[in-house]
Amino acid sequence: MSPEHAARLAALAHGRRAAALGTLHAGAPFVSMVPYALLPDGGAFVVHVSRLAGHTKDMLADPRVSLLVMQAEGEGVDAQALARLTVQGEARELAKGSGEEGECRAAYLARFPEAEPLTAFGDFSFFAIRPVQARFVAGFAQAMSLAGESLSRILAARG
Amino acid sequence: MSPEHAARLAALAHGRRAAALGTLHAGAPFVSMVPYALLPDGGAFVVHVSRLAGHTKDMLADPRVSLLVMQAEGEGVDAQALARLTVQGEARELAKGSGEEGECRAAYLARFPEAEPLTAFGDFSFFAIRPVQARFVAGFAQAMSLAGESLSRILAARG
Repeated sequence: MSPEHAARLAALAHGRRAAALGTLHAGAPFVSMVPYALLPDGGAFVVHVSRLAGHTKDMLADPRVSLLVMQAEGEGVDAQALARLTVQGEARELAKGSGEEGECRAAYLARFPEAEPLTAFGDFSFFAIRPVQARFVAGFAQAMSLAGESLSRILAARG
Repeated sequence: MSPEHAARLAALAHGRRAAALGTLHAGAPFVSMVPYALLPDGGAFVVHVSRLAGHTKDMLADPRVSLLVMQAEGEGVDAQALARLTVQGEARELAKGSGEEGECRAAYLARFPEAEPLTAFGDFSFFAIRPVQARFVAGFAQAMSLAGESLSRILAARG
């Protein structure tokens, strides 16, 4: 990937705040909205979800998920040409009080300080979504695939 | 659903232009971006996709899909409270030249006139995604489920 594309990818992932999360729901796809943060090393997307929510039950039943981060509509860009990043990854619930959970909590609350009260509820927990592979579409007919490790390096460079 | 919530749902679905499409990709969820239009009767979301794209192959292999339409970020709303609509539905490719395809093409090009040249490419086709069920989250702790027919009626009222 060219340095220009890598910079655009990192700006997109760091600049947006909400992703579309695809989970397996009784064997079918289910897409819901999740606010997300990135770990400083780019190794995971962090989400904070309730056990009462369908997507949480889905992730506990099957860790295979997909995340989509899209450029904002408008900005003078045709809808077909919006930049977007699809991540296929593995979701893992983090044990409360663990070191990993602490890192994820810090990254998440740095981005969403208003979510702090929710972290006191027992039914909410942090999940780390580790990228396995990704596809970045920078615009019309500009699509490129990359491995999870490559994505993490690109995200860390802007972390 | 209250008239106020129905009006907000319709405004969201008619006002946005790009959705997150969840498909089954080798048994795992895959989320990609699709511009969409609505049929005037609210009976389907219309997308225009290339057979070269992964999501198209996925829909041809398994018609079960999910669409997410999200309120724009910002607008003074916390990310957790963004309004969003998840649709679970069935995707069907429309035969070129059929009456149904004509209706879908008209609805799509009314919204995306810039896509007209792409319709001349043989590898692009229209798919209609019929809602089977839906979930509307109007804001924090304001979630409601509805049947596909109910969603269609709400969308048609604003069509």
